[in-house]
Formats: sequence, C-alpha cells, structure tokens
Amino acid sequence: MNLYVINFKGETAVGELINPEKGSPGAAEDMEAAESFIQQAMEIILQEAVKKATNVKEKVCEWRSPEQLKELLDLELKDTGESESKILQCCRDAIRYSVKTGHPRFFNQLFAGMEPHSMVASFIIEAIKTSQYTYEMAPVFTLIEDVLLKTMMKLIGWEEGGDGLFNPGGSMSNMYAVNLARYRYCPDFKEIGIYASPRLVMLTSQECHYSIAKAAALLGFGTKNVYVVPSDNRGKMIPSALEEKIQLAKSEGAVPFFVNATAGTTVLGAFDPIDEIANICEKHNLWLHVDACWGGGALVSKKHKHLLKGIQRVNSVAWNLHKMLMATLQCSAFLVRDKSCLLQRCHCAGASYLFQQDKFYDVSYDTGDKSVQCSRKPDAFKFWLVWKAVGTRELEYRVDRALALARYLAQEIKKREGFRLVIEPEFANVCFWYIPPSLRNLPESPELWKKLHTVAPVVKERMMKKGSMMIGYQKHGDKPNFFRMVVISPQVSKQDLDFVLDEIHRLGKDL
Amino acid sequence: MNLYVINFKGETAVGELINPEKGSPGAAEDMEAAESFIQQAMEIILQEAVKKATNVKEKVCEWRSPEQLKELLDLELKDTGESESKILQCCRDAIRYSVKTGHPRFFNQLFAGMEPHSMVASFIIEAIKTSQYTYEMAPVFTLIEDVLLKTMMKLIGWEEGGDGLFNPGGSMSNMYAVNLARYRYCPDFKEIGIYASPRLVMLTSQECHYSIAKAAALLGFGTKNVYVVPSDNRGKMIPSALEEKIQLAKSEGAVPFFVNATAGTTVLGAFDPIDEIANICEKHNLWLHVDACWGGGALVSKKHKHLLKGIQRVNSVAWNLHKMLMATLQCSAFLVRDKSCLLQRCHCAGASYLFQQDKFYDVSYDTGDKSVQCSRKPDAFKFWLVWKAVGTRELEYRVDRALALARYLAQEIKKREGFRLVIEPEFANVCFWYIPPSLRNLPESPELWKKLHTVAPVVKERMMKKGSMMIGYQKHGDKPNFFRMVVISPQVSKQDLDFVLDEIHRLGKDL
Repeated sequence: MNLYVINFKGETAVGELINPEKGSPGAAEDMEAAESFIQQAMEIILQEAVKKATNVKEKVCEWRSPEQLKELLDLELKDTGESESKILQCCRDAIRYSVKTGHPRFFNQLFAGMEPHSMVASFIIEAIKTSQYTYEMAPVFTLIEDVLLKTMMKLIGWEEGGDGLFNPGGSMSNMYAVNLARYRYCPDFKEIGIYASPRLVMLTSQECHYSIAKAAALLGFGTKNVYVVPSDNRGKMIPSALEEKIQLAKSEGAVPFFVNATAGTTVLGAFDPIDEIANICEKHNLWLHVDACWGGGALVSKKHKHLLKGIQRVNSVAWNLHKMLMATLQCSAFLVRDKSCLLQRCHCAGASYLFQQDKFYDVSYDTGDKSVQCSRKPDAFKFWLVWKAVGTRELEYRVDRALALARYLAQEIKKREGFRLVIEPEFANVCFWYIPPSLRNLPESPELWKKLHTVAPVVKERMMKKGSMMIGYQKHGDKPNFFRMVVISPQVSKQDLDFVLDEIHRLGKDL
Repeated sequence: MNLYVINFKGETAVGELINPEKGSPGAAEDMEAAESFIQQAMEIILQEAVKKATNVKEKVCEWRSPEQLKELLDLELKDTGESESKILQCCRDAIRYSVKTGHPRFFNQLFAGMEPHSMVASFIIEAIKTSQYTYEMAPVFTLIEDVLLKTMMKLIGWEEGGDGLFNPGGSMSNMYAVNLARYRYCPDFKEIGIYASPRLVMLTSQECHYSIAKAAALLGFGTKNVYVVPSDNRGKMIPSALEEKIQLAKSEGAVPFFVNATAGTTVLGAFDPIDEIANICEKHNLWLHVDACWGGGALVSKKHKHLLKGIQRVNSVAWNLHKMLMATLQCSAFLVRDKSCLLQRCHCAGASYLFQQDKFYDVSYDTGDKSVQCSRKPDAFKFWLVWKAVGTRELEYRVDRALALARYLAQEIKKREGFRLVIEPEFANVCFWYIPPSLRNLPESPELWKKLHTVAPVVKERMMKKGSMMIGYQKHGDKPNFFRMVVISPQVSKQDLDFVLDEIHRLGKDL
C-alpha cells in the first residue's frame, strides 16, 4: 500500500527521479488516502484496543504459543506491499493477540488500567513526532516538563526546587542517579575515567530493583561493588546493617559514594526507612537516591505519604508516573535536588549542530544536553494532561482507593481456606500462596514448600490459556513461588478481586 | 474531568473505600464518557496534527517565546480538574504551538515527514500499553521484533544472522556497542568493574556523533580515552590515521578495544570507509561498530548501498528507522553479529519475578534481559507495519527519491548567486552558505567569514518567527555557520526545495 502521490512504477519511475516534478503540490490527493487509512485505523483502535480491551467480559489475553502465533500472523516482509484491507487486518490481529494491560483483570505488572487522558496525550505525541532536544523543537513540551517536574518536587518537599528530566524508564533514572553521584564525588572521572579511582562502592538493599546492579555493570563499577544491605522481614533495609556495610567497605580501603533506598520494592512493596538512611548518608557524606518508581505515587496521598517520610532530604528521586498514577508507558521522572546544574555538567557534550549558543532565545530552555540520549520523547505531556484533567485530589482519591482495595484483598485472603499471605501488605502489592486441597493437610516441611513451588506456574499457565486474568508469580529468597497481585487502576472493583481468588481456586484445586 | 465511575466526593467517599462496592461492573457507563473523550480527541488529532500539520499552505511552527507561551497556555496543575472542553482545548493548543515535523517544509533534523502506517502503529502501541519484557507480556511484538531484526540483518549481509534489540534512540544503541565490546574484551569487568583494567581506548572519527563521547563518560572510560581520528575533507575517517592512533594508544600502554565508524555523519552526511577500517580492526582484533543511525537507510537501495560497503564484516550496527525510513520516534535498532548470546550475557540480571525459568513456554523468547532497561517499548512494530504496507521496493524508491532531491538541491545551489555549497553531498545532507548581497563582493578573508557567521542565525530567527520553514544551521570545525538541509520525506517536492532557496534569500537579502 502506498499512500503517497508517487507510486512505485519500477525502474522508469526511478529514472525520473533525477528531476522530480511531483511532490507536495499534489500531496493533497494522496494525503486523502493517508487520512482515510488513519481514520479507519482509529476506529479499529477505539473498538478493539479501547472498548473491547477494557471490557471485563472479554479476555485479558488470547494466548497462542510462539509457533501458533507465527502461523496466524503473516510476519514476513516482502518486496511488495500489502493492500489497505490486509494492513488494517494486521492492526486488528496485533491488538487481538496482544495482552490487554488496560483490562480490569490484568494484575501482572506494576502498571495497569486505561487512563484516557494519558492515552490521548500519547497519540498527540506520536502524531506530531516531537523530539525534545531544544525549546525551538519542543516549545510546548519543554515548558510542560518544567511545570510537571516542579509540581512533583513540591510533593517531594523540595521547597527550593531542583532539576530533572523524563527518561525512558526507571532503570535509566536510577542509572542517572549513580552517574550524578559519581560526578559529584569526582568530576574529573567524566574525562579521565575511573581507572585511577579507589574502588567505589554502591549500597542498596537485597530487595531493590535489578536496575541498580545493571547500572553498576554498565557504568564500570562492577556488580560486586554493589554492597547488598540486608532487609528485615518486612522487606525494609535495616539501617544498622547499612552502617555496617559502609564500615566494611571503608575498612577494605574502598570508597562508598552512593546509597539507593527503595520506596516500594518490586515484589513485596516495601518502603525503606528514608529518614534513618538519610541520617547515615549525611554522616558519611554519601549521595542518597530513592528509587520511588513504584511507591512515589503515595506522595499524592495525605493518608499514605508517610511511607516516604524523609524523602525531602535525599539527593535524587526516580518516580515512574506510568505505574501507580497510570500514565501510558513510559513516563519516568528523574529528579535531583541539586541546583548547580550538576545534571547538565555531568552529561553535556555541547554538540554545536543542536545546542547553538547564538540562538535568538534564552538557551537555558534547551534541556537536551542534560540527557545521555539525543532524541528524547516528550513523555511529561502524558501525565501533565492527566493531572490537568482530574486534579490533585482525584489523583489522591485513586491512590487511596487502590490501597484500600489491596487491603480488602488481603483481608479476603486471610478469610479464605487455602490462601495464605506472604506478608501483610503495606502498599498495593499483595503477595500470597494458594494451597490446593491436596496440600492443605501436609505439615510445614521442605516437602510442602517444594510441592507448593510448582502450584503457581501451573495456575498461571491455566489462566493464560483461558485468558481470564493475568497475575504474576515468583520465588523470592527462600520462599517458594507465590502470587503477587497488584491493584492500581480505579477501573478495578471488589468483585474483580473476589473473582481472582475464586478463579485461582477453580484453576488450581485439582493440583 | 473524571471519566471513571467513582467520582471524587471528598472525605466521605474516601471513607467508603474500605469496602468499595463499585468498580468494573459499572465501568460500562463511565467507559462511555472515556470513549467519547478519546473519540473527540482523535478527531482533533486528525484535523490538526495530521491534515493541517502536513499541509504545505500552513505554518511549520507558530513561534512564541517561552514567556509568551507560558501566558498562552494555562500550565499550572491544581487540586481540581478541568472540564472536558478545556482539556480538548489544551490538546488543540499543544498541537498548535508545537513544531510540525511532518510538514513538507520541516528540514531541521535527521527525521521528517508523516508516515501514516507508522503513526497508526504508534497509536496501537500506546492504546494497548505494552512493555516488551517477555513473550507472555508481548507475544505479537516479540515475534515482530525478531522478524524485523532478521530482515535488517539480511540487508546488512549477515547471512548467518545475529542478535539485536530496539532501544530508545541511537545514543543508547551506540552505548550498547561499547558495552558489548568491553564485555567481549573481558567478561569479568561486569562483576569486578574496570578498576584493575589497563586503560581502555575507544577510537572514532572527528565527525562522529556526540553519543560516543557520552558513552565513554557514562561507562567509566572517560572522554579523554576516546581517541579522535582525523577525517578527510569529505568528512570520512582516514584509515591510515586510525592505524596511527591505534599504535599511539598501544605505545602509551593503553588497550584499544573499540572502533566506531560512522555511516552518515550528522552534519556532512559522510560515510567512513568501512572495508578499510574493517581490515585494520581485524588485524588488531578490535570490535568494529558502525553508527548507521542516519545512513543505514541506504541499505535498502541497490543504487546507494555501496556507501556502506563492507558493513557485513562489522561486529555491530546501530540503525535508526525513524530517520531516513520515516518511522515515528523512536525506532532504533541495535544489531550484533555475535550468535553466542553476548547481548544476553553482557546485560542479564535474571530478575526472578520477571524472567521465571519455570514458565510453560520456551523462555528463549523472553528478550527483556538483553536490555539495560526494564520497561521497553515495542518500537519494532512502528516500522514492521510500514514495511508490510509498502514493501521493500517502495522503501528503496523513497530513499532513491530523497537522494535525487538532495542532488537537485545541490545543483540549484551551485546555479544560484549568493549560495555556496560547503561540500558536494554524498547523501541527503546538503550543507551550504547563503551570502547576502552586501557580502558578495568582499574578498575571502577572516572578516568575511566572521560576518557570514552571523547570517544563518538571523535567517533562522526570521524563518521561525514567520513559520515558513525550518532548517538547521551550525558552525563546524573552522567553518562559520552554514545551513544543513536534509531531504527525507517523499512528501517533499522540487518546488519545496526551490521555495527554501527563494525564502532564504527573501529573509536574508538585507543582511
């Protein structure tokens, strides 16, 4: 299908190219074909990816094995194009066989639900195809990013502001924090590398996200120089253990320089005690970063913001608005309390073709050189529009509702035979085992745990093949496989949670 | 505006949350409001961001200074939300004051134009909100990424295939290449860091993209350990100079391990001689990466693929399909010839909650642990759908047409008084000076160059304020500011290029 004015006509047409007379004057006619195609596709998206994909009576996923799916979809790319109707069918198929993450029974990740304003903001970003290097290229989105970051800083409690950027994901934001901490420790490393450096040590809890280890590997520190601090039985970093690990590193002649505290761990949803950790970091002059990618959402809630008590004291924060606050993927803020342009100085390369200094406007609005990326998506718009549309109080309401639903689910689990909580939930993660009738009378023993370990994967397989819901599971430390339910979306009801427990029992009772 | 079933009702409602009876059973009614909003927004997008934004009779941009734009847009985020009509107006304003990168007279970056299939693919991705960690989460897009990467590898000439990933931008892809090269040199660095390493040296040409320096800083090597190889007067790396720099590094006791060749430099559009560079890299056992982010598009053209002659010999390639091949942002492939799972081994962290090994399908389809990201967008779909719709021959036609138009523009520049080419174009970059009448009779002298240096910024300011077109400019080495025109989109005509030269003269003739 060719929607442009000059269709492919074989070699003759290519010959004509040397002096191409056609083009935009005739663009009106072929733009009509393009518009008609876009309009038809929009209707498919509305019907299939919005209405049907969020309808609780429809499937969450229509599982096919890789082999089956390859046969169903005609994936091969060929010399000639396909008809419009075939391409529209490809669009329908892509939606049909994809997981419906906006479905009320999708609980598989730390994001879920359909936020219509964010979806619309994403469409606008894609349609106008903006890359946010400079004010000149992205005037609206540059100002919007600035306002959104400042509003977030107020919630964090940085009265004097700070700096920041939106990044493609929380892993990148965590990596930025490590790099900034290194730069603060020794700016010369940017030029000379870390060869001449003493061994630098990062500290984080055993429950932290794996992006901390990935950052250590990528930035040249090595994963062994991430010192893992034990957590308590609630999944929270033990401050005295942090102090011990810092002393250990120092006693080895190494230099601790960076501490990561997690606000909302991935599996258990635990919050490290920021205030106590900040005391230790201040004492030792260590950069304190909070990975609040998941738990940051609690900052909009008067009722729950205590979970992040002390966050105003830290050096940097990663906060994914696409998680608890439901922006479309990805919408990840990296915020830094520094006001001395550390972010710019640490990352700048000063490309003359992009960041000209002889521009006719204030080039301090050109934010691109704060990034390690070149092209950067204007992700802030995806949440600014949500916030503008619903207001802070509705955001608060959504978070409070999600956490109330999580508590409801935990209470139900405690009531029901054959279900057992792994830990009392503090946030939106509800971790639990389902124990099929055949295992219920076994004594607690390694044998029971071994058998229990095999239950969740089978229940998961069955729910995927039935398409009735999606929930994640994992082993964790010495604990055998358990389910991790995450409640985020206001589109989820008590009935959906009851359904989940009933359905797990239906799917697993014969095991 | 609250499109969900449970509206904000103040503290009482929050109190009710402990036992929330409402939710998805009633979702149908509030989903109607959400759908109506999405539908209205889609109509605005079609009218304003598609039709109007690509109409040559409309402005490319509607320039406002930061101060003016802040006044025009009500950016502040408040406790309460806004009405639907206000939010739809925010959408219109965001489009109105953004740069129209799909407009036929947008030539400011290495991307341009509106590709309807890619736009539609992007909308689908945003609507179904997929993160591509695992086959289970992204079945369709996992298979599509695999097919697209393999098809690209065929064009590169890797008969035996290889491995790869889509990343958020070419800077990330280049960084991946550096990290893989380091991992191949010494896999232990992943764990122990590079403290005990000899000084490692990267080599690249003076014309390369700034992301190479950014990678050196971020990965802990330091920018001074990027040895800059001189280029010839066409902007191409001089192979004998590469050999000299390698010898220099070795003589200093350093270890060269990575060479970056650029296929399509950012400013001049130059292609480094890959075959000759490959000879040198093979001799010294160095990882050879090609940054073909910009020039990779030539691989679809029988007529122009000679520009990348030898690319089948290299270790890795970065190729942005959102540049010459017009995918929506971002669509950046990183390809590696290795077939021993180097990408996986170098980046994996093996998070147990995501990459469970006891799944019911072949987990080799789970690609997420090859990435340094966690959430990753299914960007491959944005080009797979284009390729499927138009076929390889139409892609070839588009590239051939763009390069023919670039040649046409260069010829016109040579014909016209007051215009002078900086360099004969080899690709789609046409670099030139506009010399206003007042300077035309001055002898070539530092004084002329100094005066000429001020011309492009003023012409740029005037074109932005008029909104008639957008073209980039920069100084480059010892050359004063010149314009860099880039022709990409098949929506551009000969008439548009004539307009550009006429308009520059109109805007600058009094200078």
